[in-house]
Amino acid sequence: MAGFPIVASRRLRSTPFTERVEAAGLSSYSVYNHMLIPVSFASLTEDCAHLKEHVQIWDVSVERQVEISGPDAHDLVMKLSARDMSQARQGKCYYAPITDGQGGMLNDPIILCLDKNRYWLSIADSDVALWAAGIAEGLGMNATIHEPDVSPLAIQGPKSDDVMAALFGEEIRTLKFFNYAYYDWRGHELLIARSGWSKQGGFEIYLHDSALGTILWDDLWEIGRAYEMRAGCPNLIERIEGGLLSYGNDMTRNDTPLECGLGKYVSLDSAHDFIGKKALKIQAEQGLTKHIMGVKISGPPIAPPANIFSCRSDGREAGIVTSACYSADFDTNLGIAMMSSSISASGDLIDILVGDEWRSAQTSPLPFS
Amino acid sequence: MAGFPIVASRRLRSTPFTERVEAAGLSSYSVYNHMLIPVSFASLTEDCAHLKEHVQIWDVSVERQVEISGPDAHDLVMKLSARDMSQARQGKCYYAPITDGQGGMLNDPIILCLDKNRYWLSIADSDVALWAAGIAEGLGMNATIHEPDVSPLAIQGPKSDDVMAALFGEEIRTLKFFNYAYYDWRGHELLIARSGWSKQGGFEIYLHDSALGTILWDDLWEIGRAYEMRAGCPNLIERIEGGLLSYGNDMTRNDTPLECGLGKYVSLDSAHDFIGKKALKIQAEQGLTKHIMGVKISGPPIAPPANIFSCRSDGREAGIVTSACYSADFDTNLGIAMMSSSISASGDLIDILVGDEWRSAQTSPLPFS
Repeated sequence: MAGFPIVASRRLRSTPFTERVEAAGLSSYSVYNHMLIPVSFASLTEDCAHLKEHVQIWDVSVERQVEISGPDAHDLVMKLSARDMSQARQGKCYYAPITDGQGGMLNDPIILCLDKNRYWLSIADSDVALWAAGIAEGLGMNATIHEPDVSPLAIQGPKSDDVMAALFGEEIRTLKFFNYAYYDWRGHELLIARSGWSKQGGFEIYLHDSALGTILWDDLWEIGRAYEMRAGCPNLIERIEGGLLSYGNDMTRNDTPLECGLGKYVSLDSAHDFIGKKALKIQAEQGLTKHIMGVKISGPPIAPPANIFSCRSDGREAGIVTSACYSADFDTNLGIAMMSSSISASGDLIDILVGDEWRSAQTSPLPFS
Repeated sequence: MAGFPIVASRRLRSTPFTERVEAAGLSSYSVYNHMLIPVSFASLTEDCAHLKEHVQIWDVSVERQVEISGPDAHDLVMKLSARDMSQARQGKCYYAPITDGQGGMLNDPIILCLDKNRYWLSIADSDVALWAAGIAEGLGMNATIHEPDVSPLAIQGPKSDDVMAALFGEEIRTLKFFNYAYYDWRGHELLIARSGWSKQGGFEIYLHDSALGTILWDDLWEIGRAYEMRAGCPNLIERIEGGLLSYGNDMTRNDTPLECGLGKYVSLDSAHDFIGKKALKIQAEQGLTKHIMGVKISGPPIAPPANIFSCRSDGREAGIVTSACYSADFDTNLGIAMMSSSISASGDLIDILVGDEWRSAQTSPLPFS
């Protein structure tokens, strides 16, 4: 699949940072929420090593915001979120699975409570705004659902604090993980969270005006010179190593959050009522038939695009590998797999079909260690 | 934006025909419904000329089916569809806008009534399954919504009937426009419609099993040799010339079907009740503030990727061009535009901003003639 160029249009949007991203050495794209997202610059391996040592600037505009506002906004968010949001407060970010009536995953946004009746769902790759609007319409709720002009830009990697402090002031170093606050920049108030889709630490700047995209990028880029900053993007290797699950890859509507190991974000025992709760309670009582885990796959390095790999144990079907890539740091191929409950994550030996070849593999908890 | 390769994954799917498409001279992709769709082979201009003279095979697997089944399937489809589906019957295809509570376009599928309680929505580029599921959930309707393994493959162009008759039998020549029937192929019953996203005539084969993709492609390809068949895809030039609107490009949730010139597919005067009807009735009574039309744009050839172009009339904002491309047959640039109601489609002179340059342009009805 690689090698063929992508053509953007109004339907498949570029971002406020596209021009800078392409000038900074982009080598390939994917598409996410109808928008371009960088996939690699130098190479997956080189990008990964740099991210772990220095600092990168990431165009993650594809993390679109579904804004839910109005008198019933809080009630609607409560209906949608498997996580109990009754105590949600400003300044905090909440990772929250959204499930359908059968408990199937529809999205796994980070929810920001901007105020009592105004929320942002910073979404993964599905039009979950349509689900929210459908629920509101069906239940006759008074809530407005729309996509504001907000384009997140991430600073990720161990030197993130230095870069951010240089532009936004020393105060930002005290911002706690999964908290957000507002910081002044050229007279604009920018919502900035300590978050991001890597395990290397960093920030996400929720830029509220596309017209400011290149100015913000350039300001950060200029400061980054002193810190060996490069343009980067969510890195396949680093996120598999860290056990960060990708909606659409590792989790789909055919999987529940319990199967995806996200049980701690699902409020089954509180009074919190949400769509899918009944089905998930039954599943929790009856036990899972499949669950997510890591796999270490022997043999030559695996590179994307990787299809889904079949797994077997003692000659019987055991599950599928949903993401896989060679990791230089682990010196083996790592994968994320949805496996039968009969397989344990603690080192079971299985076989995985890569191309035409069955390879030996070993299960592992996530994140890899 | 062009020039950077796209990387597929489980989240951004390839199709049952991808291998054949790439072997047949593909030159670029777009992404549609989380899936790869070819955008060009030889070139837009050459592909267009060939389509008008011969016959092409198109991988339109991206036209995913949202299957709605169960006791309340008919009632749910009625709620969703702006077009009155009360008399819908098997064997017919129905083009039907789907609107939100404000009348905004959410999708414009072709609806197939497979039987009384089983429908397919052959969708444009949005996760309208989530809207349908949200409405069903909110209204407590008993309907199952899922995406079956169905991958449409189109045969388009003036020699389509000859190719199809050679594979499926002479009977298929009698199939009427926007009708479908079942035809035998290697012991499988294939649902085939006389339809497709061009004005050159042709068919869409709703292949029901991914595993059969390359076999079906190869059978058609072999017959196609006698008819100068090439691999092709929905062609930007041909579809603009023909006034075929693209959801996400020419129509968004910020536009209503009335503004998009789709009034004849909206049942405002019957007893048919659907989501958005109230808002659309008010709009119909109050009159439109914007409407869709064609524009002929002077100056050098415009090639994709084209951004949205601003339009002005007598120095005032007048609308936007949402799709544009040079047409060899019309020997000018053609565009589709959402314009202020103060602008008429019958030849008004306006100015359009292409890059940094204001160019003179003239409005036109759609399709161009």
